[in-house]
Amino acid sequence: MKICGMNLESLKVWKGSWHNFMATLITGVRTFDVRFPTSTMLDGSDAMNADPDYSAAYLKIYTSDPELTGDSLVFTIGRGNEVQNSAIDILAAHIVGMDTQHAFDTIGDIGRKLSADSQLRWLGTDKGVFHMGAGAVVNALWDLFAKERKLPLWKLLADLTPEQVVAAIDFRYISDALTPDEALQILRNAQHAKVANEEILRRDGVRAYTTTPGWLGYDDEKMLRLTSEAVADGFTLVKYKCGKSVEDDRRRLGKVRQLVGPDFRIAIDANQVWDVNTAIDWVNQLQEYKLEWIEEPTHPDDVVGHSTIAAGVAPTKVATGEHAANRIMFKQLLQLNAISVMQIDATRVAGVNENLANILLAAKFNIPVCPHAGGVGLCEMVQHLAMFDAIAVSGHHERRFVEYVHHLHEHFVEPTNVVAGFYKAPQLPGSGAHMLDSSIDRYLFPTGHYWTEALQQSGAQK
Amino acid sequence: MKICGMNLESLKVWKGSWHNFMATLITGVRTFDVRFPTSTMLDGSDAMNADPDYSAAYLKIYTSDPELTGDSLVFTIGRGNEVQNSAIDILAAHIVGMDTQHAFDTIGDIGRKLSADSQLRWLGTDKGVFHMGAGAVVNALWDLFAKERKLPLWKLLADLTPEQVVAAIDFRYISDALTPDEALQILRNAQHAKVANEEILRRDGVRAYTTTPGWLGYDDEKMLRLTSEAVADGFTLVKYKCGKSVEDDRRRLGKVRQLVGPDFRIAIDANQVWDVNTAIDWVNQLQEYKLEWIEEPTHPDDVVGHSTIAAGVAPTKVATGEHAANRIMFKQLLQLNAISVMQIDATRVAGVNENLANILLAAKFNIPVCPHAGGVGLCEMVQHLAMFDAIAVSGHHERRFVEYVHHLHEHFVEPTNVVAGFYKAPQLPGSGAHMLDSSIDRYLFPTGHYWTEALQQSGAQK
Repeated sequence: MKICGMNLESLKVWKGSWHNFMATLITGVRTFDVRFPTSTMLDGSDAMNADPDYSAAYLKIYTSDPELTGDSLVFTIGRGNEVQNSAIDILAAHIVGMDTQHAFDTIGDIGRKLSADSQLRWLGTDKGVFHMGAGAVVNALWDLFAKERKLPLWKLLADLTPEQVVAAIDFRYISDALTPDEALQILRNAQHAKVANEEILRRDGVRAYTTTPGWLGYDDEKMLRLTSEAVADGFTLVKYKCGKSVEDDRRRLGKVRQLVGPDFRIAIDANQVWDVNTAIDWVNQLQEYKLEWIEEPTHPDDVVGHSTIAAGVAPTKVATGEHAANRIMFKQLLQLNAISVMQIDATRVAGVNENLANILLAAKFNIPVCPHAGGVGLCEMVQHLAMFDAIAVSGHHERRFVEYVHHLHEHFVEPTNVVAGFYKAPQLPGSGAHMLDSSIDRYLFPTGHYWTEALQQSGAQK
Repeated sequence: MKICGMNLESLKVWKGSWHNFMATLITGVRTFDVRFPTSTMLDGSDAMNADPDYSAAYLKIYTSDPELTGDSLVFTIGRGNEVQNSAIDILAAHIVGMDTQHAFDTIGDIGRKLSADSQLRWLGTDKGVFHMGAGAVVNALWDLFAKERKLPLWKLLADLTPEQVVAAIDFRYISDALTPDEALQILRNAQHAKVANEEILRRDGVRAYTTTPGWLGYDDEKMLRLTSEAVADGFTLVKYKCGKSVEDDRRRLGKVRQLVGPDFRIAIDANQVWDVNTAIDWVNQLQEYKLEWIEEPTHPDDVVGHSTIAAGVAPTKVATGEHAANRIMFKQLLQLNAISVMQIDATRVAGVNENLANILLAAKFNIPVCPHAGGVGLCEMVQHLAMFDAIAVSGHHERRFVEYVHHLHEHFVEPTNVVAGFYKAPQLPGSGAHMLDSSIDRYLFPTGHYWTEALQQSGAQK
């Protein structure tokens, strides 16, 4: 069909170009201090963290399109959430006024610039609140890019060319372990399998494991009941907090092993409570329970310590990453054979860009990426990265497990969908971080309805 | 002389006890955002930091004695100084109401508690603004302890028993490299020489080196003129910023070496601009200038990288530390033979307590501590730690150089006194951090007189 010598197909193209010409601009940014009162239930309790209030330093990017926002969050566990927001505020100001298409085309540069502000860099050197703040800005941009293209983030990432992925990564300080050319080669080698991998993902999802039964604050009865439920739900790996006492761990793990049988996978998580030698002694006293991995045996900065522990507790594997501040820490953990499982976190590092680096580092060293999740929003966000990995980097394999914890999902526009032990591929556009406005309103600290009410009740009880 | 059967001597004792009984209490804390406009002069310019405004996130502890405050600061380079202050505010609230004698007796516990608040710990894990914030609180307490006892901090520290020093240290996560017993032994072995070491300190001081001539923003003429002045002033080691280009470094170092002759010590500082392999290639192209050390060749988190570089650039030594976030990073640098010079910083880590750990780790591994200074207040503060080391740990030796930069000293109650290339021992009570009230007032950001005036002038120029 032709109109004035132009067929409808070319008109569509022209309209598309016109739409592109009417640039979408980033018009503003705002942070929200959102805190959930998880400490009242002892969800999230472990040997290091007695009473976390799972919180989100939440960032919203507004655009000239009133329907389009970019959403992200930094997960924190309560106090200091407002300081995290201050850091995000300072960094997010840099992107106001930017054209979203230009931002997409230059996301690597944006990430590098956010991390390279020399005055802010001094306050962490690629770690701490400013590094996580840079991650919040980068992640909100990726959320926006995905929504603009009406794609879930995993699909947007999986459809990037190897060159686009490499351009998003900051190779500074990791080139001795992974060069841009090596990264390109890894991505190109996986190209032929992408269509098949995406089909498998859409059918099955990626394998999950659950930490829901394992919190240290739960008594044995609750732990075993939740373990039975997890097995019935189709999980094939469950993780338990440990590190209070060897006797306690032996009792709990003995009961769990008896319940689940000899072949079920059991992991443990010490949340950094041990020194190096203690870790080795302790874990070796638990070897009879056939543990899949020991997670965070010691301080996250102690690469050398993790390496010593890994040698000392084999065949139990060592896993860490939720506190690994940046790609440079992961690089070293791999270089020293300190980990057999890389646990990336969606909000600890400088966003999607840096996690692309981490995933490719893991591929180079042939170590599976088993993302850390739980908290609030972490399952929703990090699943996209695992799915990108499964399609475009390391493929589907039995060594990948994405952490799952069964709480706080109801606050998100698209809660994670875990069925029969698998994370199902998200369908909605975006990165998963988009929290319901009603939840932000209610749990805004300290002025949201939940907190004003809690304060009144606490006053009334006095 | 007797009054009512009591002689004056016992009255003095009794008054003393009474004074102790009338406990001095910490009544309040306050932070000040103090910024100096150093970017206008290019002082402090290097390959990583183009335009720093040397700043202090300044903490004052008030007590029930109106004459007695505890003062400290975290050195920053401008933007984000207010976020650093927010972190200090949150942590400093914990010490309000404390009895100062009790604080002195339990300073180790206080330090451990400040670093162990699990919710705040999440935001850095012993690094970043909360870790430096804990350092500010600990350092302000030590300043207060020294003032109460009318001693400069170096003397207070040197007079502590080995048991008191060890009690102040958090051995968590370093016990695989240094146990409390080993630390005690190092301190006890040095006990016999303390009196003699103190005499030498009071007579000579500790050796300084200067970075004043070496800023990257200076032209060759200014660099050489300041170098001549440094030599004339008695310095025996000068440090130059490098890393802009190999040609630039060869030209500048060639001119310097020609000026100072073959035996004068020249160090260089790359401020983290290189990847591992670049660092090795680059430094090896400078070997003919007989460099004392290469400082911060790559990212401060890259322990493995520093180790590779150290092996690759020998006999040039590797130095680092001003961005080493905590004792765990220093431990690993020592374990992997990655440094030959440990550059502790007074405000990067969790205060005096953690620097005691660092100094003892260095002693265990027989590596000299050559503190980082410059900035604002860093010379004033860190000299006390070097002097403690010289009296009570590693003694006087020719491998110790304390960095000196000739600026911003006029803002302190007791500016550093460097004579003939030596830091002279401070005389006044305290830790050196006490800034003049007039300087705090004038450079308070953004309401101090300097900044309101600068803002007006900038408005008038438009």
